[in-house]
Amino acid sequence: MRVGLLTGGGDCPGLNAVIRAVVVTGVRRYGHQHVGLLGGWRGLLERRSRPLTPRDTAGILARGGTILGSSRTNPFKDGGGARAAESAAAMGLDAIVAIGGEDTLGAARRLHDEFDLPVVGVPKTIDNDLAATDYTFGFWTAVQIASDAIDRLKTTAESHDRAIVVEVMGRHAGWIALTAGLAGGADAILIPEVPTSLERVGAFIEERRLRGRHFSLIVASEGVQLEGDEVDDAERDDFGHVSLADIAVGERLSAGLRARLDVDVRAVVLGHVQRGGTPVAFDRVLATRCGVRAAELVAEGGFGRMAALRGDAVVDVPLTEAVAELKVVPPELYQQAAVFFG
Amino acid sequence: MRVGLLTGGGDCPGLNAVIRAVVVTGVRRYGHQHVGLLGGWRGLLERRSRPLTPRDTAGILARGGTILGSSRTNPFKDGGGARAAESAAAMGLDAIVAIGGEDTLGAARRLHDEFDLPVVGVPKTIDNDLAATDYTFGFWTAVQIASDAIDRLKTTAESHDRAIVVEVMGRHAGWIALTAGLAGGADAILIPEVPTSLERVGAFIEERRLRGRHFSLIVASEGVQLEGDEVDDAERDDFGHVSLADIAVGERLSAGLRARLDVDVRAVVLGHVQRGGTPVAFDRVLATRCGVRAAELVAEGGFGRMAALRGDAVVDVPLTEAVAELKVVPPELYQQAAVFFG
Amino acid sequence: MRVGLLTGGGDCPGLNAVIRAVVVTGVRRYGHQHVGLLGGWRGLLERRSRPLTPRDTAGILARGGTILGSSRTNPFKDGGGARAAESAAAMGLDAIVAIGGEDTLGAARRLHDEFDLPVVGVPKTIDNDLAATDYTFGFWTAVQIASDAIDRLKTTAESHDRAIVVEVMGRHAGWIALTAGLAGGADAILIPEVPTSLERVGAFIEERRLRGRHFSLIVASEGVQLEGDEVDDAERDDFGHVSLADIAVGERLSAGLRARLDVDVRAVVLGHVQRGGTPVAFDRVLATRCGVRAAELVAEGGFGRMAALRGDAVVDVPLTEAVAELKVVPPELYQQAAVFFG
Amino acid sequence: MRVGLLTGGGDCPGLNAVIRAVVVTGVRRYGHQHVGLLGGWRGLLERRSRPLTPRDTAGILARGGTILGSSRTNPFKDGGGARAAESAAAMGLDAIVAIGGEDTLGAARRLHDEFDLPVVGVPKTIDNDLAATDYTFGFWTAVQIASDAIDRLKTTAESHDRAIVVEVMGRHAGWIALTAGLAGGADAILIPEVPTSLERVGAFIEERRLRGRHFSLIVASEGVQLEGDEVDDAERDDFGHVSLADIAVGERLSAGLRARLDVDVRAVVLGHVQRGGTPVAFDRVLATRCGVRAAELVAEGGFGRMAALRGDAVVDVPLTEAVAELKVVPPELYQQAAVFFG
Repeated sequence: MRVGLLTGGGDCPGLNAVIRAVVVTGVRRYGHQHVGLLGGWRGLLERRSRPLTPRDTAGILARGGTILGSSRTNPFKDGGGARAAESAAAMGLDAIVAIGGEDTLGAARRLHDEFDLPVVGVPKTIDNDLAATDYTFGFWTAVQIASDAIDRLKTTAESHDRAIVVEVMGRHAGWIALTAGLAGGADAILIPEVPTSLERVGAFIEERRLRGRHFSLIVASEGVQLEGDEVDDAERDDFGHVSLADIAVGERLSAGLRARLDVDVRAVVLGHVQRGGTPVAFDRVLATRCGVRAAELVAEGGFGRMAALRGDAVVDVPLTEAVAELKVVPPELYQQAAVFFG
Repeated sequence: MRVGLLTGGGDCPGLNAVIRAVVVTGVRRYGHQHVGLLGGWRGLLERRSRPLTPRDTAGILARGGTILGSSRTNPFKDGGGARAAESAAAMGLDAIVAIGGEDTLGAARRLHDEFDLPVVGVPKTIDNDLAATDYTFGFWTAVQIASDAIDRLKTTAESHDRAIVVEVMGRHAGWIALTAGLAGGADAILIPEVPTSLERVGAFIEERRLRGRHFSLIVASEGVQLEGDEVDDAERDDFGHVSLADIAVGERLSAGLRARLDVDVRAVVLGHVQRGGTPVAFDRVLATRCGVRAAELVAEGGFGRMAALRGDAVVDVPLTEAVAELKVVPPELYQQAAVFFG
Repeated sequence: MRVGLLTGGGDCPGLNAVIRAVVVTGVRRYGHQHVGLLGGWRGLLERRSRPLTPRDTAGILARGGTILGSSRTNPFKDGGGARAAESAAAMGLDAIVAIGGEDTLGAARRLHDEFDLPVVGVPKTIDNDLAATDYTFGFWTAVQIASDAIDRLKTTAESHDRAIVVEVMGRHAGWIALTAGLAGGADAILIPEVPTSLERVGAFIEERRLRGRHFSLIVASEGVQLEGDEVDDAERDDFGHVSLADIAVGERLSAGLRARLDVDVRAVVLGHVQRGGTPVAFDRVLATRCGVRAAELVAEGGFGRMAALRGDAVVDVPLTEAVAELKVVPPELYQQAAVFFG
Repeated sequence: MRVGLLTGGGDCPGLNAVIRAVVVTGVRRYGHQHVGLLGGWRGLLERRSRPLTPRDTAGILARGGTILGSSRTNPFKDGGGARAAESAAAMGLDAIVAIGGEDTLGAARRLHDEFDLPVVGVPKTIDNDLAATDYTFGFWTAVQIASDAIDRLKTTAESHDRAIVVEVMGRHAGWIALTAGLAGGADAILIPEVPTSLERVGAFIEERRLRGRHFSLIVASEGVQLEGDEVDDAERDDFGHVSLADIAVGERLSAGLRARLDVDVRAVVLGHVQRGGTPVAFDRVLATRCGVRAAELVAEGGFGRMAALRGDAVVDVPLTEAVAELKVVPPELYQQAAVFFG
């Protein structure tokens, strides 16, 4: 069997570990052959590929990024599924392993359902907002990096009577903020699932002050919604070409608090450090096990399915589940965490 | 309610996080009061304690060790359960939260079942060999430390044409070895569940050599059994008081291979670094959530039960489950991993 | 002798290690007594202090921040040197150990020269821009944190054909950018000492592209000057109260490049993570040795002097040297580094 | 000019950074060509080499080990200097850059002095015991790793009333033990330069106990001499082939203390983790700067010399200095550190 692999969407620690596991397991257990499709679905559409042997994957397990490159190309927007199916045939692919997030897996599902392409999926999102799996690889690496940063910032906040707002990733779900905030002992955690406002955050800091706590460490998801903070893509400045919409919510929150309170408030926007570099051990193992399951699915003909973590087992579920529903932080969990605030 | 907390057995990253979570949740949600029993069950028997308020637990979340001290005292060996029950009454304890491994939880279960003590458990073992829970806190910290060490040792092994044996913890189960070995891309993994011999390991190294791989990185559980390696507590040397039985299996394996092969073989015995120090984010969060569940169990009167992780949920199970069965590495999982060897 | 200690100015990993070393060495070698002045010079002016014994300093060696708090209070602006001298007399201080940067040590020097206060200094700046010492503690911690972030960001930049601008600290001197950029293998390094422009940075990225390098990792000091990038404190936005002047140069540079090039450009502003948290081993040792030297200076009556690193020796120099001259990156060193760019 | 590079002796973080810096600087500034000699001096004697271009060195800056391999081959023992000189001529080498420790640089010096080979040196030892340079690259990485391990072990020692002996590298000089011990706040530090005995170490632990400190963390150099601990290469055991001489001093010390005291004593022998893996930022920069200086020396014809760190400058000194004298820990420095013991 000739298997094509591709990685789509944003960066995520563990992509290379999946690639290695698919190739090593495929070759050694099943005698598969592999090609890497370059730059996500674009590699399929443009028929750009490289051979992939176990030797090519030596040493990549611990490396961040993806040796196959990535893109946001979506075959259903950029050429149509028919063209993807033609490419797969022309390239002699008997199976495709698509490693990616909602968008990549959504395309995978449609290519399977509508064009009968033999696709297997591996879910990827550092945000951990896929309902079909307990955890996605990359998530615990992002959380560890954020937690390490919070550890560092706490001593600074305490020693200098400061409020520090740490913005972490999470556009639609607050998993990274909640988890890293719990791990770091944050004084408050702001997530998209729980609406708040500049007033309420300011009142919280003031109330702490009255209790003698002159510092506060607040973790905020990039996707948190603050009442009254509707940012339009306003007229841009000539030099910097910066508009308010470009400014991270952590910066806006921090500036707003500074203007309102007699407190030294600073923002730290962790940004892309959360999604690059070597994965933590948990993610290396999860990514490896997902890759093994994907190779098994290829061998078993389990197309239209993807690897998923359930408890301590890696199982498989239909691709439809990957895109069915966004997994958000449930209110009870947030309330449990909120007991530690203040 | 007046709640006594104790930590028993060996060190494990996350103990302080559990203590903090029980106290903060107990006080803020339920109005509980807490005392720390010092040195495990010994603290109960000897009625040695300290008060525990949320303020006492400030800043301990990220700290290794346990602020309550620990011991291997077992009330059923050292004084009898009756004496423990008397102490609990004399100290006015309405509940006891026992954080520990098989031995500590076994005693907890008997105190509950035989003496009607209101005990709640939190399982603790870096070895991850408890059947009742997907993961125990401390495990992923141990794995991360071992995986970091393997990352470092690989470049040395490769550059110097060397075989390196890394011994990690795991007396009865190979979880740390298997998981850290997978995360680090070990060339072979030796675990208690899969018997091997010096001959076989030597042949493996030789066979790699013939394929041009002049280095090998082998991860071994401390509990691995090598045929023919029966170590008696032989006559001790006068100065060092060292007997062969004191020598780690990694050292014995390495010395045996050195004598047998024309290869530079080195042993690294990671030892106690694996169980001390700050927990990784996963373990901080798991420990915190187990502490929250324990406080809830106290409030609900859920005695004779303990917190457990199932998937991404922290639930509770009877204490009997904790000690029912050792969770060992299943053959299929080892075989999946073995595909990466060689 | 009764010795007052204070820490002034911004946070810097190693402050607590200095405090511990002064106290332990002072007590054990010389029988000194110590008090901590709270919140920098403000603690002296307001006579707010706490006792400091070796026991009080147990466990602080590795902790970030400062147990004495800090402030930017300058006695010559906020009360006058005479008031400081009065306080010192009233508090019975026979010596003051002032740990701080240019501002704190400048005040220390004037208090010594003009008011005859028995002051000893310990230089502190993560920017490493003091001419009197080879390195200041805190610097290598900041560099390590920045270098770790660059390691993570490189794989992301490479996998996603991206330009990433990493802004690090360094208002007046480019030491952190240059050193972390060298350690991380940056593609370009922008520092205050070497003027550049948006055009030149854009041309650099384009030129790499033409050579097939579709990614670039650029490290920039917060103090870098870009021609044409004069930011006024423009009219502030109603909600966010954010003006362009609040926006980090890394963000402005990134937005400018994005507008100009057909490249995905991202900014990461590391900010305060660089100056908080546990010090690297180098800084723990340097801080400890500086504290030892400060205690020795107190015992020897070496007032008006401060500890300094020269080669592998910690010596002492007049306080005047601390503030004499800013140590900037010499052109030759930048040129050596620039060979690695591109 | 055609330049041969080689790395000799034991592993040391930073070797690849030196190789990269020599090649990049040599090519871009001087138009040099480079070949890598494989396996240290053996590569020269056996004329085994690989080409080295800047492209070959991409991505190796942060990687541990050496891409050229290493060996302990000494041309003066294994073939004679004349054969080395012949090889150099036959391979068309106009210069050789030898990166290594005392042994490698000693051979380099003799090849230069006796056979007129155009050799430039770069000193390498994680032990930091070369008098000619303030610090050697690799040292601060080893210290950081040891310091991190001590951080982890302290909480375990404290929580479990234990004495822990941490053995670190340093056969002839105690630099790693002293420096990591200071950085980690060790309770005692044992180094080769200061003789001690099992009795004295035991008395120290007992005396702490009497003062209520039931734990002790002791850092020992592998080269520390304990009175009465003369280990012969005694008769070897049949299976393990382990003799007492194979047992690390940390293990012997720990076993001896255990037999003597009523204390739980554990040994941790850090071993090879100290010399593998990615270098800390300090060592990446130092190694890079040494490589730059070596390339400059080649271009300037500065043969018979080697790069050295003096203060914050990388200079060059005669190769004779490298091997002139062992740099040991001076008594004053040890006494300063000893103030923190106990």
